[in-house]
Amino acid sequence: MSLTVEQLSCSKSFGCAILRYRHNSSTLGGLSAIFSVILPPNAKGASVLYYLSGLTCTDQNFITKAGAARAAAKFGVAIVAPDTSPRGAGTSGEDNGWDIGTGAGFYLDAVTPGWKKHYRMESYIMKELGKAVKEALGDKVRLKAGSIGICGHSMGGQCLALALRHPGFFSSVSAFSPIANPSECPWGVKAFSLYLGDDKTLWEEHDPTCLVTKRGKGGLCGDTRILIDQGRNDEFLESGQLRPESFQHACEKVGQAVDLRMRDGYDHSYHFISTFIDEHIEYHSEAFTSVRSDMKNNKELPVKVNHG
Amino acid sequence: MSLTVEQLSCSKSFGCAILRYRHNSSTLGGLSAIFSVILPPNAKGASVLYYLSGLTCTDQNFITKAGAARAAAKFGVAIVAPDTSPRGAGTSGEDNGWDIGTGAGFYLDAVTPGWKKHYRMESYIMKELGKAVKEALGDKVRLKAGSIGICGHSMGGQCLALALRHPGFFSSVSAFSPIANPSECPWGVKAFSLYLGDDKTLWEEHDPTCLVTKRGKGGLCGDTRILIDQGRNDEFLESGQLRPESFQHACEKVGQAVDLRMRDGYDHSYHFISTFIDEHIEYHSEAFTSVRSDMKNNKELPVKVNHG
Repeated sequence: MSLTVEQLSCSKSFGCAILRYRHNSSTLGGLSAIFSVILPPNAKGASVLYYLSGLTCTDQNFITKAGAARAAAKFGVAIVAPDTSPRGAGTSGEDNGWDIGTGAGFYLDAVTPGWKKHYRMESYIMKELGKAVKEALGDKVRLKAGSIGICGHSMGGQCLALALRHPGFFSSVSAFSPIANPSECPWGVKAFSLYLGDDKTLWEEHDPTCLVTKRGKGGLCGDTRILIDQGRNDEFLESGQLRPESFQHACEKVGQAVDLRMRDGYDHSYHFISTFIDEHIEYHSEAFTSVRSDMKNNKELPVKVNHG
Repeated sequence: MSLTVEQLSCSKSFGCAILRYRHNSSTLGGLSAIFSVILPPNAKGASVLYYLSGLTCTDQNFITKAGAARAAAKFGVAIVAPDTSPRGAGTSGEDNGWDIGTGAGFYLDAVTPGWKKHYRMESYIMKELGKAVKEALGDKVRLKAGSIGICGHSMGGQCLALALRHPGFFSSVSAFSPIANPSECPWGVKAFSLYLGDDKTLWEEHDPTCLVTKRGKGGLCGDTRILIDQGRNDEFLESGQLRPESFQHACEKVGQAVDLRMRDGYDHSYHFISTFIDEHIEYHSEAFTSVRSDMKNNKELPVKVNHG
């Protein structure tokens, strides 16, 4: 199936083009997929940051609420925001709750009957999204493996798992309020049971805290630190859904540098994300620069999708 | 009826408190009304900027999409965002279109049967909102007439009409993509017919371009310039709904200073507003400062609501 990308809209913010595209996705079992791009001025050669949203979101929440275009323009970074799940898969139960199914794909490939045909967001992000972006934008942005950063919020904290599962693919990884230890929290247990079944060893392959414990440091290039911001007034921190300290401890044990910054008074919303998004974009921008000089002669790195 | 204000939510962004309140509104015929506030750090003595949203919006569009907290914190300005209409009035026809009735109150007091009981957004903004803010926040912000600024977007460009109709009440007025000459555009004709009836002389009393022509300069303190930003790629500019040049010409004729800044490539969305909101907040902040020194001994100014 050839990849056909259609532009849905174009707007302008802080000098950036705000673009939205739809394409047919073979990875998602033939469904349509939508993603948005923030393209900075003078985008030629700009590096790319993927941004993964949280439960219930589409590609639009980040684009309309995070105020990211300001820093995208300043640091010359293109930001790609995919959707959070397949849409219209018709899988039984996919609309039975806001924390599973539609809007809640958890950025993994399901293995269970009913789900495994369409719910393949990990393969979509790792193998098809880049091609769709390239088809949409041509040579305007830099898509070479190793100069892509990834950031996410809440469920999009699975960016940590993707970076650890695909060593060398991402130059940098940062998260806002990530679900950092999903095997041990209600949202994660519910979703992993549904998408991955009962085999807990498979769960561990998609849990950032388990992954860093098992695989050790080295998911990122060189000595890149992982950056995490977490609001202290986040109701889901209180209720044990996020567990950033578990991830931090696991990192410390294996020598993976991580900056977990606890922010007084901030909650789980985009009011929090918008406050600190500039710092995240700057962090990725600095990683791109160091990766570029480190990896001058580096070839395209293989994309490995490992189902455990 | 006493004014009872209930806090619905509190979040944090750029150090500001993002607050949402509900209260019973005698002005709106006993309905509930909701407004939001961006309260900067060290808010004691902060001046106030009212922000009026466009068609279909609630108080939330500006709060979640404009990224205004950054500049509110920087310039120490509290921003109050009311709703765009009464909700649940039960007026026949109020949900028959997105450009009339619910979400489309046009910040005026209706005089027509059916509408006049609840659709009284001008009186709400000018007489009740300040009291509700004071009840909600106590002495944290400065609510003295003459040190309040007003800004709006699209239908919220009726901020221009409110400033001209209530001389001395607002220290400064700015707008994004205002419906600047509603008597002469489809949205305005539809809404004014419904809320004001057939008498065109009454329409003129709510049309910024007619008002400035009729009343001349002097709606604002001293030599304050009116600030307007307008995207050149705004579909509603093209279709004649906005007519900012009519307002500009009317201002020039009577000597009212106005800066109409046409912005290449920008459209009607919050992507546009977020790009320039900092400059609007800075403009109001400067006006507050000059008003404060001008009006040290000024008493509370009378609130005049003139129905033509």
